[in-house]
Amino acid sequence: MADSAVKLYDTTLRDGAQMEGVSLSVEDKLKILHRLDEFGVHYVECGYPASNPKDEELFRRLREVNLRQAVPVAFGSTRKAMIGAEKDRQLEELLRAETPAVCIVGKTWELHVRTALRTGLDENLFMIADSVEYAKRHGREVIYDAEHFFDAYKNNPRYAMDTVRAAVEAGADWVCLCDTNGGTLPWEVQRIFSEIREKIPVPIGIHAHNDSECAVAVSLTAVMEGATMVQGTVNGYGERCGNANLCSIIPALVLKMGIPVVSMESLAGLTELSHYVSEIANIKPDSHQPYVGQKAFAHKGGLHVSAVTRDPETYEHIRPELVGNMQRIEVSELSGKSTIIVKGKELGQDLSRHPEKVQEILDMVKEMEHRGYHFEAADGSFELLMRRALGMHKVFFRLESFRVIMEKREDGKVVTEATIKVHVRGKRVIATAEGNGPVNALDNALRLAIGRAYPELADIDLQDYKVIILNPEKATAAVTRVLIETGDGEKTWGTIGVSENIIEASWQALVDSVEYGLLHKKAQP
Amino acid sequence: MADSAVKLYDTTLRDGAQMEGVSLSVEDKLKILHRLDEFGVHYVECGYPASNPKDEELFRRLREVNLRQAVPVAFGSTRKAMIGAEKDRQLEELLRAETPAVCIVGKTWELHVRTALRTGLDENLFMIADSVEYAKRHGREVIYDAEHFFDAYKNNPRYAMDTVRAAVEAGADWVCLCDTNGGTLPWEVQRIFSEIREKIPVPIGIHAHNDSECAVAVSLTAVMEGATMVQGTVNGYGERCGNANLCSIIPALVLKMGIPVVSMESLAGLTELSHYVSEIANIKPDSHQPYVGQKAFAHKGGLHVSAVTRDPETYEHIRPELVGNMQRIEVSELSGKSTIIVKGKELGQDLSRHPEKVQEILDMVKEMEHRGYHFEAADGSFELLMRRALGMHKVFFRLESFRVIMEKREDGKVVTEATIKVHVRGKRVIATAEGNGPVNALDNALRLAIGRAYPELADIDLQDYKVIILNPEKATAAVTRVLIETGDGEKTWGTIGVSENIIEASWQALVDSVEYGLLHKKAQP
Repeated sequence: MADSAVKLYDTTLRDGAQMEGVSLSVEDKLKILHRLDEFGVHYVECGYPASNPKDEELFRRLREVNLRQAVPVAFGSTRKAMIGAEKDRQLEELLRAETPAVCIVGKTWELHVRTALRTGLDENLFMIADSVEYAKRHGREVIYDAEHFFDAYKNNPRYAMDTVRAAVEAGADWVCLCDTNGGTLPWEVQRIFSEIREKIPVPIGIHAHNDSECAVAVSLTAVMEGATMVQGTVNGYGERCGNANLCSIIPALVLKMGIPVVSMESLAGLTELSHYVSEIANIKPDSHQPYVGQKAFAHKGGLHVSAVTRDPETYEHIRPELVGNMQRIEVSELSGKSTIIVKGKELGQDLSRHPEKVQEILDMVKEMEHRGYHFEAADGSFELLMRRALGMHKVFFRLESFRVIMEKREDGKVVTEATIKVHVRGKRVIATAEGNGPVNALDNALRLAIGRAYPELADIDLQDYKVIILNPEKATAAVTRVLIETGDGEKTWGTIGVSENIIEASWQALVDSVEYGLLHKKAQP
Repeated sequence: MADSAVKLYDTTLRDGAQMEGVSLSVEDKLKILHRLDEFGVHYVECGYPASNPKDEELFRRLREVNLRQAVPVAFGSTRKAMIGAEKDRQLEELLRAETPAVCIVGKTWELHVRTALRTGLDENLFMIADSVEYAKRHGREVIYDAEHFFDAYKNNPRYAMDTVRAAVEAGADWVCLCDTNGGTLPWEVQRIFSEIREKIPVPIGIHAHNDSECAVAVSLTAVMEGATMVQGTVNGYGERCGNANLCSIIPALVLKMGIPVVSMESLAGLTELSHYVSEIANIKPDSHQPYVGQKAFAHKGGLHVSAVTRDPETYEHIRPELVGNMQRIEVSELSGKSTIIVKGKELGQDLSRHPEKVQEILDMVKEMEHRGYHFEAADGSFELLMRRALGMHKVFFRLESFRVIMEKREDGKVVTEATIKVHVRGKRVIATAEGNGPVNALDNALRLAIGRAYPELADIDLQDYKVIILNPEKATAAVTRVLIETGDGEKTWGTIGVSENIIEASWQALVDSVEYGLLHKKAQP
């Protein structure tokens, strides 16, 4: 557990859940909370009890949860205008959540007081003071979120500071300055912090949004200028353009700014944390995401590859292992011979003595990329291509034909069925299986047909299936690229198929997926 | 054409093309070049003649191209060690490209001179001077890219400045400081610029990569500190984590920093430019991308929606129209009644007087989202849901049943065929059609069956088809969500289907797609 002067405040479960496509169950939220706790996040904002009925159950169950260090936080806003705090239903629900800390958001910007609250400037100050004081009276640690602080300060610095003072005088433990609309640039944060830092007698936080693509820079700049709390979300999830991305902020704090917000051991789990949350949130990971993306340390330019294999520092800003990521050498039209040689080495072949073989493979890759293949996400298919070129390939089965039938019958029932005819170890096998869809049915039929010969298949599962339509403008001549990700519990591999027909493309990717799996399980044809 | 003190330098065609999945033909590159020229970019780096044979044809065809203002640039590196510049094949090809300007990249960092070049520090200085001088002697405008400048400067400021001086003394017109590994933070750029600005007597540029998620902030900070050229790519395309994103840099320069790098009229074409390039590059647009993303100005929280419809400035950092984007009000579990009322208004219904109806629709949305639906990307399906709830729905046809057969025959040929039985205007119609895949065949059969009754269908095309597997961990119980995007040449709409069976889910989305299209074409059942 890192004892750091700067505290991490995660709001994936509240602000992050606002993002399109994210819909977290109570179970999901508890899983993420535990992960964040183990990782070393200091505060975890779990939800907005008054806005979301699901969160009521979450807070109820939270009372029985043991956390290592994370402080769970419930989120709410200041009381309604012209009533007492104790009469405000929303504040009542905030306290009923029974979390040790609460976050109360209040208005800082005149425009919002007038347009959103439709009340007076003085009444807003009372609303802030009353609400903070009410939560403090009930023993809560209070984080006061000053909504739109930077816009408000640029518009009317005096009133903006009045609202902050109201919160501080009512006992707020933290004041968190929010760039709610995400429009503020780093040097504005620098200037404003230098003006207000001395005037706020409690620790200051930063809460940034990414609408100017500067949320990470804004958050780090605030820390440079004295902020000791950073609010953000895992992978930068959040509505519009997202929140400040903790997966980029944390490694910068630890590795570049020397602020140990988490231990080095935790940091090495960052990539896993990122993928874990994306999996639960059911958002496809961004492979180009800084630090944790699959391509964050991928090299494919020929020159880059030969330098980076000699000394990684030449083209890598940090050592990928420090954040649990890894260097990847990839193959493409642009890559030179050095990439093929590196890949050959991984297969135990020294190709540096066979330049003609290297050229042959390179030509083949270029020709296939021209037809729509892309091997960057299909390491499995690329290895099979290399094996074929090097005479290291094994044929596990041969397809004779297949047929898939899907019916939606008059009673509304949908049935999908695949029949496959294959030759395996000299025998002709016919198998029929049902499935959720055509590829699933084909996969099931293939496993049925060859599963007896290759029991190794039982451990190999299709994990992801992706379809991309190339040249969509030429509707009928369009080519379909299918990527399949397969895993055996230890590692995953990508395979690819390209064809005008989606089923043919899927079949190619499926066959590569199974062949790669059998090869690495050391199965014998 | 904007006459600006700061120049935009686009490298989408060279550095951007290094990104996974991007593979641009000569035709594609010319299209993008023309678009960038029309938009008002000042320099367009078209390629690296010596590394890519495709680029040879490009540069040949470039000679016959008329541009409004953009200066095409060819990219190359300094000469090899220990030979004369005129003997360097790569520099020869650079000049053979016959562009008015060239960009020459050289080593700034000792580590690279030793590890990548494997030559002496002095020889590197000669390589820089000779190469720049050689290009100047042949009448080129020379942009000198100081690779790894910031890392090099931190490591050995004297040698880093020696390399820059070598380029300047040899006649370089620009020195562009590169953060090649993307590890530099904004305040480091600020500090280093303040130290070196006065020592470089020619205009300075900035070239940043996004490995720390700070490339936009680094680029803008450099401009604040005196840089007058910004190198970047459309949508931030580039290897690893991408290059500095011009789509975020340009609006910040124009709207927030008062630097008119392009005209306001051009700026209003930014969203279109972003989507145009992503379409040609065949990369799905990032809907959360700042400024230009489909969700960049989307609001779904209930409180946000009621404030933002009163005054957009409350939750938008710029007016979306300025960059050619638009405000979007979206529907989801988290959104309140105000969203439903706004959507009702769009259908010409004043729901504010029918709170029970609003609640009914909200409950329905919540229940469907629970089953896996998501209406943010399915505005078409949501409108149909509203219409059904409000008794405004029209039934254009009724399905009896369908069957799809796909075969891969012994001769390797693949055939997909769909048969559909529908009732349309009181008649039972049976139609069979082939297709590239099951959904395409179904779409074709449906059009055949009802196309005579609804000739409006001829203008309506499926444009995109997306499959997401939900809860993939529960393999057999997994639910498939299908999103279809359809267009009629004027507008596009999204529709959704959810089912355990991918074909059933596709059918739902397909039916919604056709019904929405027919409704808006004012077809009569």
